[in-house]
Amino acid sequence: MLFHMESDIILSAVKKPIMLIDRAKSVANIERMSCKARSNDVVLRPHFKTHQSAEVGRWFRIAGIDRIAVSSVSMARFFAANGWSDIMIAFPANLREVDEINHLAGSTNLSLTVSAKGIMPLLAERISAPVNIFLEIDVGANRTGFNPLDIENLLCAINQAATNPKLRLAGFMTHAGHTYQAQNSGEIFHIHKTGMELLNKLKKDIGDQLPNPVLSWGDTPTCVLADEYYGADELRPGNFVFYDLMQWQLGVCSLDEIAVAVAAPVVALYPSRNEMVVYAGAVHLSKEVALCPAAKPHYGIVVILDTSGRWKIPEDKVYVRRISQEHGVISASEQFMERFVPGDLVGILPVHSCLTADLLRHDSTLVIG
Amino acid sequence: MLFHMESDIILSAVKKPIMLIDRAKSVANIERMSCKARSNDVVLRPHFKTHQSAEVGRWFRIAGIDRIAVSSVSMARFFAANGWSDIMIAFPANLREVDEINHLAGSTNLSLTVSAKGIMPLLAERISAPVNIFLEIDVGANRTGFNPLDIENLLCAINQAATNPKLRLAGFMTHAGHTYQAQNSGEIFHIHKTGMELLNKLKKDIGDQLPNPVLSWGDTPTCVLADEYYGADELRPGNFVFYDLMQWQLGVCSLDEIAVAVAAPVVALYPSRNEMVVYAGAVHLSKEVALCPAAKPHYGIVVILDTSGRWKIPEDKVYVRRISQEHGVISASEQFMERFVPGDLVGILPVHSCLTADLLRHDSTLVIG
Repeated sequence: MLFHMESDIILSAVKKPIMLIDRAKSVANIERMSCKARSNDVVLRPHFKTHQSAEVGRWFRIAGIDRIAVSSVSMARFFAANGWSDIMIAFPANLREVDEINHLAGSTNLSLTVSAKGIMPLLAERISAPVNIFLEIDVGANRTGFNPLDIENLLCAINQAATNPKLRLAGFMTHAGHTYQAQNSGEIFHIHKTGMELLNKLKKDIGDQLPNPVLSWGDTPTCVLADEYYGADELRPGNFVFYDLMQWQLGVCSLDEIAVAVAAPVVALYPSRNEMVVYAGAVHLSKEVALCPAAKPHYGIVVILDTSGRWKIPEDKVYVRRISQEHGVISASEQFMERFVPGDLVGILPVHSCLTADLLRHDSTLVIG
Repeated sequence: MLFHMESDIILSAVKKPIMLIDRAKSVANIERMSCKARSNDVVLRPHFKTHQSAEVGRWFRIAGIDRIAVSSVSMARFFAANGWSDIMIAFPANLREVDEINHLAGSTNLSLTVSAKGIMPLLAERISAPVNIFLEIDVGANRTGFNPLDIENLLCAINQAATNPKLRLAGFMTHAGHTYQAQNSGEIFHIHKTGMELLNKLKKDIGDQLPNPVLSWGDTPTCVLADEYYGADELRPGNFVFYDLMQWQLGVCSLDEIAVAVAAPVVALYPSRNEMVVYAGAVHLSKEVALCPAAKPHYGIVVILDTSGRWKIPEDKVYVRRISQEHGVISASEQFMERFVPGDLVGILPVHSCLTADLLRHDSTLVIG
């Protein structure tokens, strides 16, 4: 459920951990990315796995977006039911859901991802409604995708697709997830340039068998930081809608651009050991840990909420240092803690907003502004 | 939702990641712990945060359990609605939910936890229905609880409770979560013995002000491994109902006693790099990582499912080495991978079953047997 905050009263009625979405920040993030894509003449197909929210989807639609990526058949069904008609499932086709895929493909312009050999013949046997097929290419993330040098298996997959006219080969897609291990923006730029070189080479080398392939490029770090897109036809960043501490540590966003915070009730104060405990643990924040070289591992940065639900970041940063299922332990100075009594709320900027949003989407989410 | 598997057909209908619960194993885990508590003349108040399931709760009831612990007001409401009438919220009282607490206390025998100074006066002001109060004592986990040497603040809290007759002081509780950092069972025994010494000393020292306090002890490792309970009146282990790889690594259970596995569809095979990819990622398994000294970090151990949903553990262990939101990357020999085609299911024993169960409870869970 997603509630709107009409007044101060609603934040004062928050009883347990919820996710606050600062609409102005999120909309600004959407608009910046949309503008950038438009001015570079590349289509933006935002990845909706980050927010999984019909309402946040509407903010994208207002910004002119008409096609999306998701990472499961379930999400594709959810957004199709919310009026989205051009959906790419940017996750290896799950053959166990082929009935759901056929059903969806009957009513939407659906794109599937084929990420390894052995899958296309099984799809060719069982797909009964028209779907676009993207061949996933592994440009170095070593997660999923064909090796870009493995022309033999790529051609084999292309030939297998031709056995079923419902499979419409659309192009190549990649997710350069190894940008998240980059040590600096130079490494991110290098991954982007060399990755796109691989896709462009495939386009040239397999052009006869797959004419005019769409080149679809993912990952928020490169899409946000890049000055050029090297011939990509579409971009599939997702996290930029909210950002988080992981992106901040990579230099992809400022702390002020992070559009979500978890509102967490203070449940215990221990000034003698410089710690306070909040009701917000692994089932709210996720166990994603930030291993910033300059700081000790942490699970979030604490922010001060005002009564309207907006937040300020203290100059001396305060971190969530340990979490268990429902507890978050914050390390803070006695001076910082003095402003709180049990029952107050603090905000926590999440390390990984996709996971936090997934955890809290079943409970209420508050949109501010 | 929780489905029962009536036949082979149901496992073949599994389409996306779900949690399998082996009922026979879980019931055996429940019975072993119940028996042990009974034969040691100590009450078992199992912590239901691990399973959060009405049905698993019924298995406890069959084993003679009539009181439970939970870690949130929401869980207390859920289990009260499922007929549980003696519930301890083993989490610092959240003052923002005092209305819900008063409502619950009107119809159940409810126990609250007071974990730091400053909270009792606020409760005394606002509690309007009878609740039992446990003072939480920190015996070394450094998460929540009064310092056991801080007699002054404990007496102060006891006096504050006396200002509202609805607050019925019941005793002392603790959760020795630092057993999870123990390097061997000797350390676990030491934590148990010294922790209970602290509680018994408090019972003696504050006996005049809090006569006949109940001593309530938590954490699965000590409750399972202990040969004696040093005067504890009740035990609140939770994880033992399912166990997981964390407990196994601590020597608390065998791999065969782990009663849950995530069924994950195989979506891509990469024999050339000895990896296969499944549909099961951080939003299913959680990002809890096992840092076993003898092995590299991992997110689960792969098991072979038979058509009935039961599993076998391969002799040469196979691990989930990397996860992202929906992807799990399994490192395996070519020989191991040969038995799978895309669309098959593998099982994954979770690192931390509480978090996995929390993530998957909104989707379907299959009970086997």
